Amino acid sequence: MDADALSEFDRRDWRTDADLDPLRLAMVGLGWWTRDEAIPAVADGDFCETTVAVSSDREKAEAVADDADAAAGLTYEEFHDGRATDEYDAVYVATPNATHLEFVESAAEFGKAVLCEKPMEASADRARRMVEACEDAGVPLMVAYRMQTDPAVRRARELVQGGDLGDPVLVHGSMSQRLLAMIADPDQWRLDPDLAGPGASVTDLGIYPLNTARFVLDADPVAVSALARSGADAFDDVPDEAATFQVRFDDGTLAACAASQHAHRSSHFTVVGTEGELGLEPAFFESAGPEFALEVDGTRASLDYEQVDQMREEFDYFGHQVRTGRDIYPDGRHGLVDVAAIEAVYESAEAGTTVPLSDI
Amino acid sequence: MDADALSEFDRRDWRTDADLDPLRLAMVGLGWWTRDEAIPAVADGDFCETTVAVSSDREKAEAVADDADAAAGLTYEEFHDGRATDEYDAVYVATPNATHLEFVESAAEFGKAVLCEKPMEASADRARRMVEACEDAGVPLMVAYRMQTDPAVRRARELVQGGDLGDPVLVHGSMSQRLLAMIADPDQWRLDPDLAGPGASVTDLGIYPLNTARFVLDADPVAVSALARSGADAFDDVPDEAATFQVRFDDGTLAACAASQHAHRSSHFTVVGTEGELGLEPAFFESAGPEFALEVDGTRASLDYEQVDQMREEFDYFGHQVRTGRDIYPDGRHGLVDVAAIEAVYESAEAGTTVPLSDI
Repeated sequence: MDADALSEFDRRDWRTDADLDPLRLAMVGLGWWTRDEAIPAVADGDFCETTVAVSSDREKAEAVADDADAAAGLTYEEFHDGRATDEYDAVYVATPNATHLEFVESAAEFGKAVLCEKPMEASADRARRMVEACEDAGVPLMVAYRMQTDPAVRRARELVQGGDLGDPVLVHGSMSQRLLAMIADPDQWRLDPDLAGPGASVTDLGIYPLNTARFVLDADPVAVSALARSGADAFDDVPDEAATFQVRFDDGTLAACAASQHAHRSSHFTVVGTEGELGLEPAFFESAGPEFALEVDGTRASLDYEQVDQMREEFDYFGHQVRTGRDIYPDGRHGLVDVAAIEAVYESAEAGTTVPLSDI
Repeated sequence: MDADALSEFDRRDWRTDADLDPLRLAMVGLGWWTRDEAIPAVADGDFCETTVAVSSDREKAEAVADDADAAAGLTYEEFHDGRATDEYDAVYVATPNATHLEFVESAAEFGKAVLCEKPMEASADRARRMVEACEDAGVPLMVAYRMQTDPAVRRARELVQGGDLGDPVLVHGSMSQRLLAMIADPDQWRLDPDLAGPGASVTDLGIYPLNTARFVLDADPVAVSALARSGADAFDDVPDEAATFQVRFDDGTLAACAASQHAHRSSHFTVVGTEGELGLEPAFFESAGPEFALEVDGTRASLDYEQVDQMREEFDYFGHQVRTGRDIYPDGRHGLVDVAAIEAVYESAEAGTTVPLSDI
């Protein structure tokens, strides 16, 4: 076992010593996630600050801007019109999935770096247009995969890539929660295909085991197959109150995954190799007592470690990479693969066939 | 949470107070499993005894019979010829899968009760013939699902059936081991489709999460889909060095399962319901420190319990039910469903389609 991989468990392997001015952010979309998770994480972090708040609602934009000590609160129209572009360097987009593209296009037009929530967009076609808009404008585009900057997941990746588990064989991953217990409104956007994309559970939750597997394995999906079901009232418009999906990766690894927006809150992520295994539980929810279990050569180690604020890590990584001009790992082309894979998952569930993924 | 379900955790809910003579067993097939696991479990148990040992090899049969203090050691031919039928009341069949049928047919002809190892046979057609042979002869047929008589699994079933987790939504289950590290011979029968059936990993290991899910949910599969891969040398003749498969059950539950004969030894089994979850780990290997985790209403309980000798529980259940003339739960019709589902799993992996399971 490579003990080095586990020393300095929470190190930020991406960090340089550069002395950096904070990246000034326009926070677009002021739902509970942005208000309760993103803005506090930015305030706590080292490399970003909130300088603009953007909402459909002017009063909300101004109230959030005030609370965050930001320079301006804007409506969506004012944002698209290019108001206050001197006040921010980059944009965090956390609106409903199917509305990401237009905000990113405006940001790209203004020459701003972009951090876009996952999934990037509601369709691969629109995700591709987002990538092209940013590439054409020469602005960095990062997709907000909070697992990829969690030190536990980065250590998992190092162990797997370092061969500590032998060759990866199987991945198990799942994420479930009771969406209607969190947000009681049955008409919320996550249950509306026009705003969320093709489904509710794989789109929003299944993307976690899928993307984390890609990151830890350093592999991409080549085929998927899926089963889905909906029965509860609020899930009438989406196919996947619950779903299972399996993924064949280009390195040969197979993944058995599941997701549900209408089940007990639970998540796990396990990689089983020829020589050992590694598991995170809970994997995709922050927890007071997360477990990182590693078993190699008959020895099982269960690591206690401090749960980081994942959004703080994510914003700090984004700010650092943009300010230093360095590459961003989960970039638009990376995120596009997930959107295409998720489309294929829903196609598979509906058609009852395994769906190959051609090159994106 | 139903505390009653967890009190007297290791109780044998099937047991009566009847005073019973031990059921006298002919052990057919004297591989390591029979010698190292089954015969010692019978000796330790309450309701069976080994009185006959049957092998392809006369010397082995006699040596094992001597060791077990049994009345006779027979060759397969002698067994089929009806030798020593006065010395046993029932037969335990633990030969390669594709040879089970003929031994069960002979046992049925002699009016003996049957405990047949899983999977029942190498094809659904042959499994169906086995069921019919036993029904025609009026002899009890049990399939040797050792999980079903493990008290931990029985308590899990009671909790799920009692509604403690709400409605079941998802099941996660997997079992893997390094077959060639256990039995180095690349020509062993488990890697030979003529003896093992359509594959190596789902047939032998994937059947554990599949059958345990059926037992705990009290539900049957209605559709399956699968991905499989083989690459390592010894797995040339089988499609599934590793496989993932997903199952839709008739109660709506979806299961994400995996199996591999060429990966680190690992197993887990989790049921996630609308209100809670329940997990066993390791699920399908006996362990000095198994974990039974239950989470309901935000409270997580991790139960310490004594690992039973699963084979002893299984033989005692079989002996008790046969001697008292009571029903056997995992009977031939129950086992046949798994064989048909496993055939469908391989058909799905090859054809790339979801395969529905018609009524067995």
